[in-house]
Amino acid sequence: MREAHAADVAGREASTPAAAARDAARTSSYAPTDRTVPTRARERATYDHETVHAILDAGYVCHLGFVRDGAPVVLPTLYGRVGDRLYVHGSTGSRPLRMAGASGEQTEPGLPVCVTVTHVDGLVLAKSAFHHSINYRCVVVHGTAHQVLDPDEKSAALDALVDHVLPGRAADSRPGNAKELAATAVLRLDLREVSAKMRTGGPHDEPEDLALPYWSGVLPVAPVYGTPIPSDDLVPGTPQPAYLTPTGDSPC
Amino acid sequence: MREAHAADVAGREASTPAAAARDAARTSSYAPTDRTVPTRARERATYDHETVHAILDAGYVCHLGFVRDGAPVVLPTLYGRVGDRLYVHGSTGSRPLRMAGASGEQTEPGLPVCVTVTHVDGLVLAKSAFHHSINYRCVVVHGTAHQVLDPDEKSAALDALVDHVLPGRAADSRPGNAKELAATAVLRLDLREVSAKMRTGGPHDEPEDLALPYWSGVLPVAPVYGTPIPSDDLVPGTPQPAYLTPTGDSPC
Repeated sequence: MREAHAADVAGREASTPAAAARDAARTSSYAPTDRTVPTRARERATYDHETVHAILDAGYVCHLGFVRDGAPVVLPTLYGRVGDRLYVHGSTGSRPLRMAGASGEQTEPGLPVCVTVTHVDGLVLAKSAFHHSINYRCVVVHGTAHQVLDPDEKSAALDALVDHVLPGRAADSRPGNAKELAATAVLRLDLREVSAKMRTGGPHDEPEDLALPYWSGVLPVAPVYGTPIPSDDLVPGTPQPAYLTPTGDSPC
Repeated sequence: MREAHAADVAGREASTPAAAARDAARTSSYAPTDRTVPTRARERATYDHETVHAILDAGYVCHLGFVRDGAPVVLPTLYGRVGDRLYVHGSTGSRPLRMAGASGEQTEPGLPVCVTVTHVDGLVLAKSAFHHSINYRCVVVHGTAHQVLDPDEKSAALDALVDHVLPGRAADSRPGNAKELAATAVLRLDLREVSAKMRTGGPHDEPEDLALPYWSGVLPVAPVYGTPIPSDDLVPGTPQPAYLTPTGDSPC
């Protein structure tokens, strides 16, 4: 399963980041750094804003990594993107939020984090076990997160979170009041040290394996929405919003 | 969005872990520790083997967290479970594998990791933005990962990885040879410090919001497999295996 590991989106010590950074300056891309240039499968890495933003905008659950007592912690949470900022959801009592500092000032040391968003697009089945792989799109963001305290920024961030989950929903629900905003914590992470990585296409078997009788190819996979289940306490006659039946490519 | 954050699966300093550990000794459960007892929504946390294993067995992509130069790194990668061990895929050249130590001996310090597996089951839409949430199942594993060097254990681990992706596939592909096994690295992580967390059910709106005209309820979501795409180089007449059309509940 040589190709399956996206687990090599990491740094290296070489001259390529500098060259790539020069390229980035000429285009609309994030400048690669030591830790955003993969050690392996570099051809799968990309830094352009359009690709990175499209992958981020296609999701709503990220995996937030931080360090606690020297050990890593990885937790799923909701996120939203507003321009070149990522907002991550938490509660005022949760550990990463407390660790990010209470004041929310940029002068606070903040919390070093890694935020990763992954979409699985297909299972790549080769004739050999070794060449099995996954088609995926992934963005990894490194940086320091700070608490958002400005009420307007926090409100916009929470709208972005809700609209990431279901576009159009933020405007179609009762906005948070002052008490609710105070009880919700939001972390801000600037999109600066960012890379995307992806794999597409079919399996790449060894020539000597091609005559083997095993099936090979790609099994597409995608999240699909089911039939909405209304609350028991729905006001009778409430219409079902159009955004509950998202259109788009479905593998079904 | 008070309920949406699974981002509080973390430790705390209190007496409950000891009491919970005593409970665990009487049942088939992982003993809770400071870092597997959540700071919030404790009623959503569980430690029993059956629940933890079912969540792990329902997936194949985890998010692997480790610490590099004091900063967190979170990467998606494939995993498989064999009994009370989790195996995580990598390549011999990738950073986390190198950091885990070359010899694979338990005497090596190994690599402190956090492995998180998350399934999103539904979008929970409340009348108020604040009470929006996600239905999910999540397992967080803390521990120290070691490289697997024993060829038999490595081979079994890679079979488990392939069968996690698609049950039955490992036996229906050409097994890895010595060269391929040597080029593939596998990390082993004992399931000891483990917790599961989940949310199910509909939204919980405030009583004063119930008369609002917004739609509320749950939009189920699940990964769905599409039509298999055979390789161009498939041997003509190769039948399509039954495991390519997984049965089970589909939200479609």
